Amino acid sequence: MVGNPMFWLVPAASVVALTFAWFFFSQMMKADEGTDKMKKIATYVREGASAYLRQQYKVVIIVFVVITIIFSILAYGLGIQNPWVPFAFITGGAFSGLAGFFGMKAATFASSRVANACRHSLNAGLRLAFRSGAVMGLVVVGLVLLDISIWFVVLNYFIPEMDGGYQLMTITAIMLTFGMGASTQALFARVGGGIYTKAADVGADLVGKVEANIPEDDPRNPATIADNVGDNVGDVAGMGADLFESFAASILASALLGAAAFIKSPLQTNAVIAPMIIAAAGTILSILGIFLVRTKEGATQKQLLKSLGFGVNISALLIVIASFFILKYLGLPLGIWGSIIVGLVAGIGIGQSTEYFTASAYKPTRKIAESSATGAATVIISGLGIGLVSAAAPLAIIVVAIALAFGFATNFDFSMSELNFGLYGIGIAAVGMLSTLGITLATDAYGPIADNAGGNAQMSGLEPEVRKRTDALDALGNTTAATGKGFAIGSAALTALALLASYFEEIRMMFVKILDQPEKLINGVKAIDAEFIDFVKHYEIHLMNPLVIVGVFIGVMAVFLFSGMTMNAVGRAAQKMVDEVRRQFRTIPGIMEGTGEPDYARCVEISTKGAQREMLAPSLIALFIPIVVGVIFGVPGIAGLLLGTISSGFALAIFMANAGGAWDNAKKYVEEGHVGGAGSDAHKATIIGDTVGDPLKDTAGPSLNILIKLMVMASVVTVGVAVSYHIF
Amino acid sequence: MVGNPMFWLVPAASVVALTFAWFFFSQMMKADEGTDKMKKIATYVREGASAYLRQQYKVVIIVFVVITIIFSILAYGLGIQNPWVPFAFITGGAFSGLAGFFGMKAATFASSRVANACRHSLNAGLRLAFRSGAVMGLVVVGLVLLDISIWFVVLNYFIPEMDGGYQLMTITAIMLTFGMGASTQALFARVGGGIYTKAADVGADLVGKVEANIPEDDPRNPATIADNVGDNVGDVAGMGADLFESFAASILASALLGAAAFIKSPLQTNAVIAPMIIAAAGTILSILGIFLVRTKEGATQKQLLKSLGFGVNISALLIVIASFFILKYLGLPLGIWGSIIVGLVAGIGIGQSTEYFTASAYKPTRKIAESSATGAATVIISGLGIGLVSAAAPLAIIVVAIALAFGFATNFDFSMSELNFGLYGIGIAAVGMLSTLGITLATDAYGPIADNAGGNAQMSGLEPEVRKRTDALDALGNTTAATGKGFAIGSAALTALALLASYFEEIRMMFVKILDQPEKLINGVKAIDAEFIDFVKHYEIHLMNPLVIVGVFIGVMAVFLFSGMTMNAVGRAAQKMVDEVRRQFRTIPGIMEGTGEPDYARCVEISTKGAQREMLAPSLIALFIPIVVGVIFGVPGIAGLLLGTISSGFALAIFMANAGGAWDNAKKYVEEGHVGGAGSDAHKATIIGDTVGDPLKDTAGPSLNILIKLMVMASVVTVGVAVSYHIF
Repeated sequence: MVGNPMFWLVPAASVVALTFAWFFFSQMMKADEGTDKMKKIATYVREGASAYLRQQYKVVIIVFVVITIIFSILAYGLGIQNPWVPFAFITGGAFSGLAGFFGMKAATFASSRVANACRHSLNAGLRLAFRSGAVMGLVVVGLVLLDISIWFVVLNYFIPEMDGGYQLMTITAIMLTFGMGASTQALFARVGGGIYTKAADVGADLVGKVEANIPEDDPRNPATIADNVGDNVGDVAGMGADLFESFAASILASALLGAAAFIKSPLQTNAVIAPMIIAAAGTILSILGIFLVRTKEGATQKQLLKSLGFGVNISALLIVIASFFILKYLGLPLGIWGSIIVGLVAGIGIGQSTEYFTASAYKPTRKIAESSATGAATVIISGLGIGLVSAAAPLAIIVVAIALAFGFATNFDFSMSELNFGLYGIGIAAVGMLSTLGITLATDAYGPIADNAGGNAQMSGLEPEVRKRTDALDALGNTTAATGKGFAIGSAALTALALLASYFEEIRMMFVKILDQPEKLINGVKAIDAEFIDFVKHYEIHLMNPLVIVGVFIGVMAVFLFSGMTMNAVGRAAQKMVDEVRRQFRTIPGIMEGTGEPDYARCVEISTKGAQREMLAPSLIALFIPIVVGVIFGVPGIAGLLLGTISSGFALAIFMANAGGAWDNAKKYVEEGHVGGAGSDAHKATIIGDTVGDPLKDTAGPSLNILIKLMVMASVVTVGVAVSYHIF
Repeated sequence: MVGNPMFWLVPAASVVALTFAWFFFSQMMKADEGTDKMKKIATYVREGASAYLRQQYKVVIIVFVVITIIFSILAYGLGIQNPWVPFAFITGGAFSGLAGFFGMKAATFASSRVANACRHSLNAGLRLAFRSGAVMGLVVVGLVLLDISIWFVVLNYFIPEMDGGYQLMTITAIMLTFGMGASTQALFARVGGGIYTKAADVGADLVGKVEANIPEDDPRNPATIADNVGDNVGDVAGMGADLFESFAASILASALLGAAAFIKSPLQTNAVIAPMIIAAAGTILSILGIFLVRTKEGATQKQLLKSLGFGVNISALLIVIASFFILKYLGLPLGIWGSIIVGLVAGIGIGQSTEYFTASAYKPTRKIAESSATGAATVIISGLGIGLVSAAAPLAIIVVAIALAFGFATNFDFSMSELNFGLYGIGIAAVGMLSTLGITLATDAYGPIADNAGGNAQMSGLEPEVRKRTDALDALGNTTAATGKGFAIGSAALTALALLASYFEEIRMMFVKILDQPEKLINGVKAIDAEFIDFVKHYEIHLMNPLVIVGVFIGVMAVFLFSGMTMNAVGRAAQKMVDEVRRQFRTIPGIMEGTGEPDYARCVEISTKGAQREMLAPSLIALFIPIVVGVIFGVPGIAGLLLGTISSGFALAIFMANAGGAWDNAKKYVEEGHVGGAGSDAHKATIIGDTVGDPLKDTAGPSLNILIKLMVMASVVTVGVAVSYHIF
């Protein structure tokens, strides 16, 4: 029924991942939660985070209802969309929402427990934090594989057999819509979470640290709970939704590209399930890797890091070996194996370039730190300069990766006849890069958990030794996070390109089918006329076409507009927080002496409402630009739009992430006693740099990751509109 | 001999423009230079500027020799380039260099004279400053028209008649190379000048204003002469070279596109000379406009502004009317007239959006100013956010302009058969936008002249009334400069697109000729094989081609790398200046009391050397990336590269220019007494914003204007390399 029994590995891996996620979760829940004060603070944060998620999901549900209605009109009213699309869209959103919910639950339950574990030893803290992060990693990959499995089985049952391999084309095209649901959910998670966390952070810092001169995470600061909630909703839930979407989209796009490339071949089914099976194998190997992260009691920080790296690297190495045998068993060309390796190596390479440009061990960040001797202006100038330059390395890596992933899959034949195989290679490279997401996401989610544990320790007034240990864990997390970020952004670019290729494939396939049976309804598209056939024949998505050029400019415009709007949103939301914190300092008696209790809930509410209000406008832009461009400028406009968005969005995202990371670490470097040391004018200059970097690296930058995927997704899903109703 | 006697309008306009430039120059030289102190300071600045230009031209000559050798090898050794290319390249560079030289001479002779005129009245100062700016404007347009006239006559004489309109194709293709020389020269002028001026400015401010607490342009500051020299080499010479290049390239690209569009038509000659004649008519009308800028003695500032605007607007209105009759006389389709109007309106629109986002009369800049209440970090965040959003408006305007300019020229038929006419329309829109460059450049160059006059007044210790008047002139200049900047960046985008179209035309024309006579050498290209014919046939520059996608990513990479490098260059050069100023304050006895003379020359030398050293690396990147991409990825790679560079470079340039401008004006707004007023913490926060904005708006941003044109030019000129020797 599903073509190849090996497919059942996919649901099996899903069940295993979810089982282990449950296992790690209940293990973590058994750990001691610490003192009453610790419990109380953890409860505040947990309740704030839950309240935020509830509020966010309410807004998202409304958006989903609206979009589902639109999709239903397109499908049932106008007949220019497949009738399954609305359902696939909804499940994608629902599963992504579930993954964020579970991940955040785990993280918020873990923080006080990790803080308590750190009272005993660094090692106990590491293990608990890492295993709690693993819950997130495994829930994400498990739910993606589950949803894919269910839909693949269901659609194989319902979609009738067709001539010439069109059954699998249709199935994979519908399944891709699942990714659209995940993208939409992820956009709101990233944008809303990003605005929330930075409004709270900037607000807490500006009034607490700068004006009132109290330390970070001080319980007297009314915004401190909101700040800790922000880490969870931004870094944990946002990051999870982001990678859920990348993981799903890379697999689904590759499946469609595989169906297209092998359309007349008996290997078609195998090409479709290959990305699913590689992802399933990677998931199993990630769990193995997670178990390999063990350290002896009393291990040094270097050993801890090595231990983490060991788990990740073993998983990566094993998936390289495993995928060779998977491809061999499936009878697929072994050149594709090269594409998988290219994807993995590119992810590592981007991670290393991120580390080079943002870690204080290297020249760029040190230069920023040194420029603090001449004040904040030079800190900002050098950070902007280095951030801009730093975008070049990942761009170069992606360029090489595209060329090689395509080349390996086609024996380096770049002619049109090999195009489909090459595009499949690009998709598979994205799958390869993300195959071990189970463990890489665990090392990523562990960072904010450690950070929150530190917050809990500080607010609960635990002995300074504990805070030191959580800081050490946090620092460790920063190093692994560099690699994690590399995978997130690298996979976003490759996935977006695979999706772009899917877009072209959908159109190309329509064309092929139209020529076969010009009168038939295909994928619901009715309004096919001679002009359209002529268009596809001549590939009028060429660069001399002014509609393509116009599209590219609009794509770049969308990126700048979107990130500017998210930046401004943070500014406005932070301003409200500043006003509230100042008000509380002014009006609550005894607040500075620690005798009056600050109104934490009010700050949580302000961040929540601010994030909800502010996330709508930029998100709607992302959703509707592709439709508007499609209606006005047709397919050539969309083609240009997507390429413009992907390329400039990728570059701007890296610029923002790296500039922000470098400013953060330059500040820490000065705090370690360099240039002027903590408290000096140089230090104050780097604090300004760090504050500027916050919305760049945690709001606008990560949101661009989603934007570039969502805009392609939205175009793919509404391809019928652009084809049938374009003005030009 | 030149096809149509109306062509002779072009050399005539050139002679008229140069004559009036000479007239205004000698008028200005007759004005009184003021006191001995004023003369001395003017001499310092003039000598510094001349020393810089000498040094810069030395470096540029070496670069030109190397490139000329490369072009000669391509032309004479490999036979893949036209033998005339090296000569056209050299004259383009030489004429652009001349224009910069004369413009800067005029500006540096004018500063003390304008300061002296301001001792009498504001009006006298305005007229002198404006007429001195007109020297620059008229020299630029005059020399462009002269060079075009000479080459058109010479090539019409030497290039033999060919069948099917290929004579004019060949002539216009060679003439386009003249633009490459101008681009190369302009890049060095913009990058070198930009680094020079901001290194001096930032260095002077950081030590003088912030550390030593002495005002701007204080003669005790050793970097103050260098700062004033910088205004001349950056804003005057750099801006002149930039627009020289845009003016030349828009005319030449349109000529080539006209030759292509009307290739089998008797109207071909008329289509080729139409852009030249429109530019010539615009030049004459600009001179008329300059004479219309007259004010009564005792006019208010508002009246002065109105008077300036009157001259500019009358010129624009008259060229709209004139071009209708020109097109009618030449027998060209009148739809093209729509394209001309589109270009003019787009330029004005971009200028107005610039003003909205950067003038303190509007919300965005006021928001930045208000955010200074919470410190420098929020000033930077809001400036970045507003800068990013501000890029959307000009992008939207350009999108509409492209669509309309193309549409008017083709009766809104976007199919392939009409492509050539549409592309000609885009080129003509750029010509229309720049047709009145003579007067718009005058209003632009007048700003730095007024600024320098203020510096002269301050350093010469003139009565405060004079400085107030020069400040008023400067403020007036800022308003007109917004429009000027709009034209500079808007024309860069449209010109670059016209050049991109020329690139495709060159290839398409090769193809057409190859099919006619497969054995013949065309434009020197030998290595034409079946694969290439196949490539052009199928327009393999489509967006599914991975080589195109790779190219787009490299294009975006080039933009980020280039602007990051120029930012870092300013940082390094400024650091050297800071060290030197500090050293002089420390070691020269009596310097702070005004009894010891600072070593101005040493600071001038440091800025000069710093600029020369730092400008090479980014400039060479711009020159060689197109060649490298062509060799590796062939024509599809280049096509993607250029579109990526133009779109992202345009957006980034606007972001940088507007963020910088808004910070500058937010500071001035606070200084006017808002938020906290001069001297407050809020004011200090806006000073940091202004300093950050300096290298963005005066170095990296304007340099991107040239980058996007130069990279297309370099691709056009080396098209034979990409066609004959590409690896993939």
